[in-house]
Amino acid sequence: VYSQHGAWCYYAVQMPLAEKDLIARIRRMAKSRPSGGVRLTIGDDCAVLRVKAGHELLVTTDFTLEGTHFRGGWHSAESVGHRCLCRGLSDIAAMGGEPLAAFLSLALPSDLPQSWVDGFLKGFLALAKRHKVALAGGDVAEARNGVAADVVLTGIVPTGNAITRSGARAGDVIYATGALGGSAAILRRMFAGESITANSKAERKHFFPEPCLAVGRYLRERKLATAMIDISDGLSTDLAHICEESSVGAVVNQFLLPVARGASLNDALHGGEDYELLFTAKKSARVPVEIAGVPVTEIGWVTKEKRVMITDVASKPRKLETKGWEHFTK
Amino acid sequence: VYSQHGAWCYYAVQMPLAEKDLIARIRRMAKSRPSGGVRLTIGDDCAVLRVKAGHELLVTTDFTLEGTHFRGGWHSAESVGHRCLCRGLSDIAAMGGEPLAAFLSLALPSDLPQSWVDGFLKGFLALAKRHKVALAGGDVAEARNGVAADVVLTGIVPTGNAITRSGARAGDVIYATGALGGSAAILRRMFAGESITANSKAERKHFFPEPCLAVGRYLRERKLATAMIDISDGLSTDLAHICEESSVGAVVNQFLLPVARGASLNDALHGGEDYELLFTAKKSARVPVEIAGVPVTEIGWVTKEKRVMITDVASKPRKLETKGWEHFTK
Repeated sequence: VYSQHGAWCYYAVQMPLAEKDLIARIRRMAKSRPSGGVRLTIGDDCAVLRVKAGHELLVTTDFTLEGTHFRGGWHSAESVGHRCLCRGLSDIAAMGGEPLAAFLSLALPSDLPQSWVDGFLKGFLALAKRHKVALAGGDVAEARNGVAADVVLTGIVPTGNAITRSGARAGDVIYATGALGGSAAILRRMFAGESITANSKAERKHFFPEPCLAVGRYLRERKLATAMIDISDGLSTDLAHICEESSVGAVVNQFLLPVARGASLNDALHGGEDYELLFTAKKSARVPVEIAGVPVTEIGWVTKEKRVMITDVASKPRKLETKGWEHFTK
Repeated sequence: VYSQHGAWCYYAVQMPLAEKDLIARIRRMAKSRPSGGVRLTIGDDCAVLRVKAGHELLVTTDFTLEGTHFRGGWHSAESVGHRCLCRGLSDIAAMGGEPLAAFLSLALPSDLPQSWVDGFLKGFLALAKRHKVALAGGDVAEARNGVAADVVLTGIVPTGNAITRSGARAGDVIYATGALGGSAAILRRMFAGESITANSKAERKHFFPEPCLAVGRYLRERKLATAMIDISDGLSTDLAHICEESSVGAVVNQFLLPVARGASLNDALHGGEDYELLFTAKKSARVPVEIAGVPVTEIGWVTKEKRVMITDVASKPRKLETKGWEHFTK
């Protein structure tokens, strides 16, 4: 874990700072100090966290790698920092949890400008601040090739109340928050050679997505969801995860899908990085059409047959291929 | 976090498995299932951990990168897996904690043989089993260049009893466990072109170091240590960390240093990766000369003057330069 060091005196330097100065800088930018559940932060062998009585701890980790999860020419440093943290916050949201503390492990090439590192931290810490998440530790190392960041998010949830992937039952209704495919549509345009920056709301959806923490919390507090996952790899893949863990199947009605503006049906079905929530609820549950300002849309139903299908109502339901993002596949 | 998938059926393949099969394989090898403090393990958006009443949670993260922390030609896959986990366990030991659950984020080049991945997991899981640590989650991703592993260790410690770096006071005695410099001596020989495998006890010290969990626990239970750190970057650097966090200085008596067989004084002072413990205790404390089978040696004392010095008794104490491992320094 980060260790604290003495005074630092670098500024606007070109190269990444020496390890101890970089850590001191992170510590200063993070305004890291014990408060709430964080009893001991950056500066020791471990961070010390206190979990509120009657609560359990949530832990999730997500790797972000240059070339795989972002490209230097496409994503600003601020966007990369933001997206790194968003992935973990979205996992906490998908359990109905409250974020507690984040840990950032950062491997940097030695020829990376310090301004990139500062931009990354700016994006990361701005999102952390908005959700009151402390940066409580991490690690820094020299990377031979490309930036690698591993972000650990811890959170809390009342004991026994975490919303898992395994509680969906036949007859439940399937819901998705927000609109789907928007992030993939932007990515598709960049692959086609277009240069895009985060100006419009649609573009911010890709570069600065917002984790649905308030929605997750609402569903957990009112015990509305029987199962939940965040849509990070794509609807088809993430719905398959719920079905596998719950030993059920599903039918998606393609006419009900909330396709994002500028996105295709394909983007909405298989595009990743939307960070919306996908959940199931009993038919009798009263699920609002909007939660915390986010639209909630019924998109299908859970079946006993362990297959994930899609229907256009007019023809027979057909198999919904899981074509979301998966590593190590050609 | 890892997601669970259906059955897997691959074996002895050449390439890393597709993501879902790799995760299924990790899950199977880890024999991951809820038990003790781990309520929900690999297979959901987050793992769910329960912290025993009256305890706090410890969290530490450590990056291990090919080329920086290990070399494919020098370290076997088993050794890399073992060392990855040892780093985190050693941090838990340095707080006087008990390990709870580990999280493994693994980025792998797509041309890496699956046998390497299996060897890595074998080394990782054998050490985990010995210390009853559950592998409760993580992430896998495709790396463009070289293996990257980030290991998160969680542990518990009775509330308020974690041994930090900041409790050393002038007049305290400084102790080190085991022998120092042994790991660096092996590394020095490999840099000189020697091919070394983990046959002797001295060689195992580099390739399969043992975290001092029992010593850390003993010191915490008896409240013997005022401050503690593990020696991962080298004695000179790690002692400086204690001094900075405690706002004190130190004098090391070089004739008292427990130099490992085959190691030089320089190796013992500045060599990293010994994973021994360095701690301070009140002069009046009765510190045994051996704890849990590990020798404990008095090596110096804490001073009011905020300088880290070394003495050979005959001449005047001189400044002990911090020359342990630091990233991004030339």
